[in-house]
Amino acid sequence: MSHGDEIIHQQTRLQIMAALNALPHGEAIEFTRLRAIVQATDGNLGAHIGTLEDAGYIGVKKDFVGKKPRTRVLLTRNGRNAFARHVDFLRAILDTSTGPERSAEKD
Amino acid sequence: MSHGDEIIHQQTRLQIMAALNALPHGEAIEFTRLRAIVQATDGNLGAHIGTLEDAGYIGVKKDFVGKKPRTRVLLTRNGRNAFARHVDFLRAILDTSTGPERSAEKD
Repeated sequence: MSHGDEIIHQQTRLQIMAALNALPHGEAIEFTRLRAIVQATDGNLGAHIGTLEDAGYIGVKKDFVGKKPRTRVLLTRNGRNAFARHVDFLRAILDTSTGPERSAEKD
Repeated sequence: MSHGDEIIHQQTRLQIMAALNALPHGEAIEFTRLRAIVQATDGNLGAHIGTLEDAGYIGVKKDFVGKKPRTRVLLTRNGRNAFARHVDFLRAILDTSTGPERSAEKD
């Protein structure tokens, strides 16, 4: 069995990638909203975002809304492709795991 | 979103658990066959088996077939339950990730 993407596989990053992948192409999500979805601390989420950005999987946009700084995150094309491949890898594992129930039904 | 099981989530252990979960209840798999499925080295597979055994998720049986030592591995009840919970966690993430395609179909 082939191996998946170690960068994406880590649980918090998997949740981040899934949340970004659920957005329409090119659309960004605010850091604060992502933090609520993933239930991570600022520091923890920031570190995982850094790892995903270094891998070229996500882009980070920083700007201001009035005087308030805003950070938004979005999936790159590479990130979307890598996530799709990793989801395929995971589904293959999950499909393996449903083997016995299926064969039991045939008995 | 809740978090999954860190012990099970690691990729090689996820593959081991899926392979064991695919066996009928109480049935063991030989170390050498598991190694072929997971595509790990003896040392690597042995280390992950140790981690899963320490967690109470798998049992390890050692005996001899003639003069040849044989190691077999099987899922415990706790392991089966923990794996099922982790699969639910992963499926929830994968379902999130299929959100945009579904909404796109509606447009």
